[in-house]
Amino acid sequence: MSVVREISPNVRNMKPLDYEILARRQNLIEKELRQGVRKPFKEVLDVSMSDLQMSGLKPLSFVRQVLAACLYPELLNSNKLPVDVRQRAQRLLGECAGASVGSYTATKGIPEIVQRISEYITRRDGGVPCSPENIFISSGSQWSLLNILKVLLFESSPKRGILVPVPSHVTTTLSIPSLGGVVIPYYLSEEQGWQLQVEELQRALDSAKAWCKPVTLYIINPGNPPGQIQSRKSMQEVIQFVSEKRLFLLADEVYQNLIYGENSEFVSYKRVLGEMGHPLSDTVELASFHSASKGFTAECGLRGGYVELVNVDPAVMKHIYALFSKDSCGPVLGQMALDLALNPPQPGDPSYPLYHTETEHIRKSLLHNIKRVSEILNSLPGFSCQPVQGGSFAYARLFLPPSAIQKAEELGLKPDTYYCVRLLEEAGVLTLPGSEFGQKEGTHHMRFCITTPQERMEEVLRRITNFHTQFMRNVSETEADRV
Amino acid sequence: MSVVREISPNVRNMKPLDYEILARRQNLIEKELRQGVRKPFKEVLDVSMSDLQMSGLKPLSFVRQVLAACLYPELLNSNKLPVDVRQRAQRLLGECAGASVGSYTATKGIPEIVQRISEYITRRDGGVPCSPENIFISSGSQWSLLNILKVLLFESSPKRGILVPVPSHVTTTLSIPSLGGVVIPYYLSEEQGWQLQVEELQRALDSAKAWCKPVTLYIINPGNPPGQIQSRKSMQEVIQFVSEKRLFLLADEVYQNLIYGENSEFVSYKRVLGEMGHPLSDTVELASFHSASKGFTAECGLRGGYVELVNVDPAVMKHIYALFSKDSCGPVLGQMALDLALNPPQPGDPSYPLYHTETEHIRKSLLHNIKRVSEILNSLPGFSCQPVQGGSFAYARLFLPPSAIQKAEELGLKPDTYYCVRLLEEAGVLTLPGSEFGQKEGTHHMRFCITTPQERMEEVLRRITNFHTQFMRNVSETEADRV
Repeated sequence: MSVVREISPNVRNMKPLDYEILARRQNLIEKELRQGVRKPFKEVLDVSMSDLQMSGLKPLSFVRQVLAACLYPELLNSNKLPVDVRQRAQRLLGECAGASVGSYTATKGIPEIVQRISEYITRRDGGVPCSPENIFISSGSQWSLLNILKVLLFESSPKRGILVPVPSHVTTTLSIPSLGGVVIPYYLSEEQGWQLQVEELQRALDSAKAWCKPVTLYIINPGNPPGQIQSRKSMQEVIQFVSEKRLFLLADEVYQNLIYGENSEFVSYKRVLGEMGHPLSDTVELASFHSASKGFTAECGLRGGYVELVNVDPAVMKHIYALFSKDSCGPVLGQMALDLALNPPQPGDPSYPLYHTETEHIRKSLLHNIKRVSEILNSLPGFSCQPVQGGSFAYARLFLPPSAIQKAEELGLKPDTYYCVRLLEEAGVLTLPGSEFGQKEGTHHMRFCITTPQERMEEVLRRITNFHTQFMRNVSETEADRV
Repeated sequence: MSVVREISPNVRNMKPLDYEILARRQNLIEKELRQGVRKPFKEVLDVSMSDLQMSGLKPLSFVRQVLAACLYPELLNSNKLPVDVRQRAQRLLGECAGASVGSYTATKGIPEIVQRISEYITRRDGGVPCSPENIFISSGSQWSLLNILKVLLFESSPKRGILVPVPSHVTTTLSIPSLGGVVIPYYLSEEQGWQLQVEELQRALDSAKAWCKPVTLYIINPGNPPGQIQSRKSMQEVIQFVSEKRLFLLADEVYQNLIYGENSEFVSYKRVLGEMGHPLSDTVELASFHSASKGFTAECGLRGGYVELVNVDPAVMKHIYALFSKDSCGPVLGQMALDLALNPPQPGDPSYPLYHTETEHIRKSLLHNIKRVSEILNSLPGFSCQPVQGGSFAYARLFLPPSAIQKAEELGLKPDTYYCVRLLEEAGVLTLPGSEFGQKEGTHHMRFCITTPQERMEEVLRRITNFHTQFMRNVSETEADRV
């Protein structure tokens, strides 16, 4: 018998994702298409993830030019690149050991980039101060979040609990049990546009106290999967709540630069906390996460994110520093992409006009997309979709007829997974089921990415409309047959 | 009281590194130099890490040109880049979702790159087959190693043990206790050129059985910190040993492409295992690690590494796949750097002449350096250094006089840390003490990087010689005074 049959229960018990089922079918379908098998579609449209560039939106020229010049400094001698691009690249290279992106950096990131991130945060937060000491760059925001969870969670009795929204994106929650923690779900209110309600936090906390020790509240704002934006008033209530209950606040704010609604505004937890003044602003412990993967820069493949820690005990900060030091630095080009995303060209800079044109094009495409998603999904019987105010996703509710639910059960699939598999196989659209993100018992949902070019979004919506109409018709015929 | 005063003991108990002491002093010294404080040196020479580019060796033009063209595809239209560079970039971009390095990839890496890595391994191993299914790309070899440790180690009673060489580089061993495992040290024989001896493995295993369950043997070949290379015969003995004792074999082989000695040859564990034939070749479980950070490509800052798994139970492979899937993909440019490092230009390719010139320059510099290190250190009283056959480091033994040891104790420092601090402060050379890597009780060592330009190595050796001579003279005067 092999040595590693006896493997860690933390690994063995990891919940398999329905995403895997769908990804396998996608691979199979794409292979068949390459082999010339005839299907009602020529390519699979993958809107399962937030990945602007995969979906066909173009990377920002400014970012790519600066990074290419950092990688291959001979480009600095060419006057084909705008002068501000060359200056930025020169400056960034000067901040690298050996003037090379191939060297390791300090484990918490290149100090000058960390400094500029702290200046971005201060600007963003209307002057609420930010110290570079509190910022750690890493390979991505989820990676930073995992490190902070490693500090907060450990095997103990009673177990330490973390309040996690339902629905919530899945990577983080997957890691909690392996760190010895437990998930305490709190439900966002779909009917109120997926808003967080403090009474629900209270309910979740009360129900959890019997079986664990709640230590942390995790919030995603703007939301993922649903693209809601939290109001300042609601954030103030949350801050009061975590202060009273002595919870550490984890604010996943990676979509802070993707805001759509006319009356929607992103305000950071750091800012609201700062503005609430003493004693809250000096005591509530907060970690806020941001990334180069989301927003218009959308360099998912380069891997760069940061966490800012607020009000964390200096003795604990030392341990957090040691924890980050244990790993190698985040990829240098990801660190630089983060810097460029947060400090783009300004009016007057040679690169600004092109930068402005490119970002406006993306912005207009996304505004178009969310308008069309809302119009079309809300016009289809069996679908409803709350307004998308920010972020990368629409999270639509599916009202599945009993016969579809029964059919899914026969196949050993969750009902919305069944729907997504059918949508993939019959219409070539890859989305993810609500069961992947958590949902109220008896409800079903589907998440898909709205950060795609307009034509692609239109094609996705066309395919969903046709598939859904047919699906509901077949289902009602089946049900009529059974009567 | 703050919420997170009560933090995870896994984080709280992490051993602080003496490296931190030295890095803090380095920062201080560099700050003073910038402020114009006069010192016997104008800059600190940092030879603490293996980082070719930080130390001033130039990155390979071929690698940088391809990656720059992938980042900024407008460069593909320029005939300033060699045609094979443009072809490689085209091909790599065609393998990215959305033809962009800004998209996520499959979590185990871009399939075509994984395929080419498997072909590299098969070539390297003289035809011993390698399946792409068994390869996982990640942000670096240490990161892959940590993932495999997460599978092998967990809280259990008795604890699960891992045999770790002394000396050994430190990142990995730091993580073992937090995963519930224990380190079982086995000592490399300095007198025999730091060779591994199976009798010592047996001794370590026997001594450990009373207090833990040994499950894994960790080997670093070529060595780090000492640059020894394991012989094929010794590897065969190790394979017999792990087979008999039912241990999982972890082979850290990241320095496989930095081999110096005329009679030294790197042979992979995978190859030796394959050549030993049935039943060993079908049963011994092995994980082999490699990286884009080491070797002539040396793109530490881009972050790319892989692990190949051999003979691991398919049921376990599924869990390992799930574990890697939980994280985002490794950085795309790191994946590409890995591909280019393992598949460089070949004779006849337009890029080959420059590639050949650049790599030969590095090779000659390193050969010069190890020759000079051996000559000079072995001529200094109080120093001895085994031959460096491969890798990035020299690991020299320091014979410190009793008064120096006493002085160190008075300052609360380990003796070799004390020596390294003095060397840094008085001569501006940053090295790392043997206490950081483990050493036999009562012995002291110093590790420094030999992968630097020749002039820099000469300056490092000059400074060490002057400092050491003075240090030993002062020490003997102190001791004479005391008599």
